[in-house]
Amino acid sequence: VLRGKNLGKFNFRDKMLHKIINLTVRDVRFPTSLDQHGSDAMHTDPDYSAAYVVLDTDSGLTGFGLTFTLGKGTEIVVCAVEALARLVVGKCLQEIVSDFRGFYRLLTSDSQMRWLGPEKGVIHLATAAVLNAVWDLWARTEGKPLWKLLVDMEPKQLVSCIDFRYITDVLTEEEALDLLVKAQEGKQHREDQMQKEGYPAYTTSCAWLGYPDEQLKQLCTDALKSGWTRFKVKVGADLEDDVRRCRIIRQMIGPDNTLMIDANQRWDVAEAISWVSKLAEFRPLWIEEPTSPDDILGHAAISKALAPLGIGVATGEQCQNRVMFKQFLQASALQFVQIDSCRLGSVNENLAVLLMAHKFNVPVCPHAGGVGLCELVQHLILFDYICVSADLRNRMCEYVDHLHEHFTCPVVIQDAHYMPPKDPGYSCEMLESTVQRHQYPEGNVWKNMKK
Amino acid sequence: VLRGKNLGKFNFRDKMLHKIINLTVRDVRFPTSLDQHGSDAMHTDPDYSAAYVVLDTDSGLTGFGLTFTLGKGTEIVVCAVEALARLVVGKCLQEIVSDFRGFYRLLTSDSQMRWLGPEKGVIHLATAAVLNAVWDLWARTEGKPLWKLLVDMEPKQLVSCIDFRYITDVLTEEEALDLLVKAQEGKQHREDQMQKEGYPAYTTSCAWLGYPDEQLKQLCTDALKSGWTRFKVKVGADLEDDVRRCRIIRQMIGPDNTLMIDANQRWDVAEAISWVSKLAEFRPLWIEEPTSPDDILGHAAISKALAPLGIGVATGEQCQNRVMFKQFLQASALQFVQIDSCRLGSVNENLAVLLMAHKFNVPVCPHAGGVGLCELVQHLILFDYICVSADLRNRMCEYVDHLHEHFTCPVVIQDAHYMPPKDPGYSCEMLESTVQRHQYPEGNVWKNMKK
Repeated sequence: VLRGKNLGKFNFRDKMLHKIINLTVRDVRFPTSLDQHGSDAMHTDPDYSAAYVVLDTDSGLTGFGLTFTLGKGTEIVVCAVEALARLVVGKCLQEIVSDFRGFYRLLTSDSQMRWLGPEKGVIHLATAAVLNAVWDLWARTEGKPLWKLLVDMEPKQLVSCIDFRYITDVLTEEEALDLLVKAQEGKQHREDQMQKEGYPAYTTSCAWLGYPDEQLKQLCTDALKSGWTRFKVKVGADLEDDVRRCRIIRQMIGPDNTLMIDANQRWDVAEAISWVSKLAEFRPLWIEEPTSPDDILGHAAISKALAPLGIGVATGEQCQNRVMFKQFLQASALQFVQIDSCRLGSVNENLAVLLMAHKFNVPVCPHAGGVGLCELVQHLILFDYICVSADLRNRMCEYVDHLHEHFTCPVVIQDAHYMPPKDPGYSCEMLESTVQRHQYPEGNVWKNMKK
Repeated sequence: VLRGKNLGKFNFRDKMLHKIINLTVRDVRFPTSLDQHGSDAMHTDPDYSAAYVVLDTDSGLTGFGLTFTLGKGTEIVVCAVEALARLVVGKCLQEIVSDFRGFYRLLTSDSQMRWLGPEKGVIHLATAAVLNAVWDLWARTEGKPLWKLLVDMEPKQLVSCIDFRYITDVLTEEEALDLLVKAQEGKQHREDQMQKEGYPAYTTSCAWLGYPDEQLKQLCTDALKSGWTRFKVKVGADLEDDVRRCRIIRQMIGPDNTLMIDANQRWDVAEAISWVSKLAEFRPLWIEEPTSPDDILGHAAISKALAPLGIGVATGEQCQNRVMFKQFLQASALQFVQIDSCRLGSVNENLAVLLMAHKFNVPVCPHAGGVGLCELVQHLILFDYICVSADLRNRMCEYVDHLHEHFTCPVVIQDAHYMPPKDPGYSCEMLESTVQRHQYPEGNVWKNMKK
């Protein structure tokens, strides 16, 4: 199964199995709430954090993975990763990836632990962290960035990574294979295009809810200078404030650039419709997370009401699994699919969602930001363009300009585009010095804080 | 707010606030998998367990609460309860219950921790455990069993315990109040009736998937002798086995008794329809959990397909919150609502679901069994009959005859009916000797086990 090339110093061992001999997980937190970075209508003081997983193998290669959290409670996810460790340690990478669907099922359907989900909340976030590390390890053994590992995989092997349980009424294995085979046409051209131009991005960095107007204006000016043309504003706490902030941004960016608004689940269904209608004059492309992430039928009602205003509905960063995405698509409850690299069960489950979105012809615009989310999700959206959607219309990947300096291979943005990563792996290895300083509660950043 | 009577030795302190000065949580596990108790198509070897919460107050009164789990991973829920403790310790009961909606929101919408749910999975199970203990404490301060505390509460106060966020498109506070006020008529009569007859129950104890046919027959014979008339069978692992087992049970119980079947999420949508159709000859009243608990639209499709066969769809034990129940009702995706006392956010969220089910005229048939679930949920279904539904048609509460001996006030079943508890509280206080012996991993039951 492993078709290694460019393995560097590991090249000499042909049949290397990469047995996972150890899993460590650490609680890493950044005090972002001090400056209101990341603040929105529901999450007023997030400390961007991660449960950070390292897999050691007997071959000397290491896999790094994480799931994103907002501070308090990260220790619960760490505890959940530790509970999953017994299913991972002792296994060989080759054994895992030769039946990746089976391994995914092993983690998500443990007879005793599935009660805690299934496939949702803390236990699924932990599953994502572990599987992200496995995919990172796999890409490293191949000496490729993850997106390239995926792009080079045969459709049949890609499909073998997906657990189709509970989605066969919308997408069977045969259909998935068919979609991937069809999209092979023009693949090399699209890969070359991405290497040259990168994948289009939008910025959320300008308009967090806690930022004063002056800061907002300055950030907007700077962003325009750097080539940004798509901007997202947080709304939902106070209508007057929203009108003022949207007006400022629309004036700053002009009529031709793109504006999106994001309420982070602040409203009930009727309130969402009436509130967003009052912001229609600023011509947002989408309203993101207008209500509960669980409310498929609510999102469908909002979509229907806002369609005449030319405003779409976007959601997904808290959509718990492929079964929910399936229904959002079935019910025409969203017009933009926002996959998340750490909420869903890693690459495996995201592959299922990318293919379902493609079948329904709904564009995927990934959620990113936080810490590490941009690094991770860029791989998925590059794969989506090259091997699934073959389309850039109405598509863009979120970008937030925070905390990239803590990674060994941070994202590269050029002219508001994600440039394809070149280093082997899934790009979420943190600097060890960062991990040590930010480890909670014993790292120096936290030990020295008075609160 | 507190209208205490029968407070016993605490009666002398009129304005007692019952400040919560300590919260402890323990991981308690019972090795039920050794005898295949509780085995089904997805949970082949459950060890019934609980995260067990004790609230100490400065008045000397104590509140006991739990959430149910299946063994492995209980430590994750314990960790989540510990993370919630800071929101509880230091608060007075009076302060909590005078704004119970606000307190519910505090636990479920913490700005940093809601990312881990929101209101689902591990963090919501932990919320249930904590709130169950608060309700237990409240009932004890009133000297009443919980069901009686609820029955005696004014509709206005009941409604003030519910968080209507995300459900106002189906049930507003005003509508809820209206439903409760209307159901006041005949309340005393129904309470008297319950005291005399009890609430109808059905048994799941006869036909766990791991039981051999002879055991199944013997248990059926015994149950019929004890007055049981409603029986549930686990299905879904093997169709031939299911046919054989359903045939045995239907022969044993005769044509007039009630049979239900339960697949515990084993199937995809199309498979569910074809499999259950092949069991239609045994005339099951419902198929329970035919597919993913998240698949509202899937359940709707199954409901529609099975309606001509006279088979309803039941689900709820893994329905994560009121937003999901709302949609199951909106989409006609279930014909029996199975509330759970530990999956939803305690009494507060169950009140919302009882009222929505009533509005849609769908009967509530609670999930019970496990450890402590019967003890808890009997209170909710008694309240439902006396103060909400006023109806017993097609209604019954699950009963499983395991582990009751570990509680200080175990359920009382007479002639296949739950008899209303008389002791103050929510009936989930465990014997301290049980907790010590079953605490994981240090209790003797586990220390002495070779595995």
